[in-house]
Amino acid sequence: MSWAPCAAQTPNAYVADCPTRVVLDRISDKWAVLILGLLAESPMRFNQLLRTIQGISQKMLSKTLKNLERDGFVTRTVAPTVPVTVEYAITDLGRTLAATVDPLRLWAQTHFDAVLDAQRRYDASAAGTA
Amino acid sequence: MSWAPCAAQTPNAYVADCPTRVVLDRISDKWAVLILGLLAESPMRFNQLLRTIQGISQKMLSKTLKNLERDGFVTRTVAPTVPVTVEYAITDLGRTLAATVDPLRLWAQTHFDAVLDAQRRYDASAAGTA
Repeated sequence: MSWAPCAAQTPNAYVADCPTRVVLDRISDKWAVLILGLLAESPMRFNQLLRTIQGISQKMLSKTLKNLERDGFVTRTVAPTVPVTVEYAITDLGRTLAATVDPLRLWAQTHFDAVLDAQRRYDASAAGTA
Repeated sequence: MSWAPCAAQTPNAYVADCPTRVVLDRISDKWAVLILGLLAESPMRFNQLLRTIQGISQKMLSKTLKNLERDGFVTRTVAPTVPVTVEYAITDLGRTLAATVDPLRLWAQTHFDAVLDAQRRYDASAAGTA
C-alpha cells in the first residue's frame, strides 16, 4: 500500500480528495454491485432489474443506474417501441469492474455463516458484560 | 450466478432477507474497505487509523470498528497503559475478506481516470440536451 500523497502518479484512496476515493465511494455501493453482477450476464430492462433485485426501490434503482451510466459502467438504450423500452447493458469498463467486485459477492455467499457466528458470539459477550 | 431462492445451500444476494445481503451491506462499506486495507498490513491504534484515513470522523471510525469487531473481522485489545492503549488487529476471517476487497481498491486507483473521463462526457452531453 502506498503512503504517498494523492497525485497523478500515486493515487491514494486514503487521501480525502483523491479521485480514487470518489471511485471507491461508487463501487462500494451494494446496489451497484448487485446491478453490475446481473448486467455482466446479459443486458436487462429496468423492470427486469427491479423484479430481480429484491428490496431495491424504483427510485434507488433509477438513481444507481444513472450513476453507473455517468461513471461509464453502463449504457442506456431507448428502443422506440410502444411503450418505449429502456435497456441497460454493461460497458467494457464496467465489465472489468464487475470482474473485480464479483469475488466480493462470492465471499459473502461463502462466509456469511462465519460472520453470523461471530455476531452471535459478540452479542452474547456484550450482553454478559453489560 | 444462482437464481435460486435463498437457502442454506443456495445463498443468493439478490434475495432481500438472505444473510449474504447482510454481509454484502457491511463489506460494501467504503470505510470498512479502507480500515481492513490498513489492518491487513499491521495492527494499529485508534488514533493512528483516525490520522491515516483522511475524512473519517471519530464517531464513524468508532462505529465502523465496532461493526468490524462484531462481524469477526477485527479484534480489539486494550493494554493497561496510562493512558489506556486500544489496538485493533485483523483476524484470519478478516484477512480473507481483505484479500478479496483489495483488488477493488487497486481497481479504483488504476481506472479512476477512465471514470472521470466518462463523467465529463456524460455531464457535457447532459448539458447539451438540457
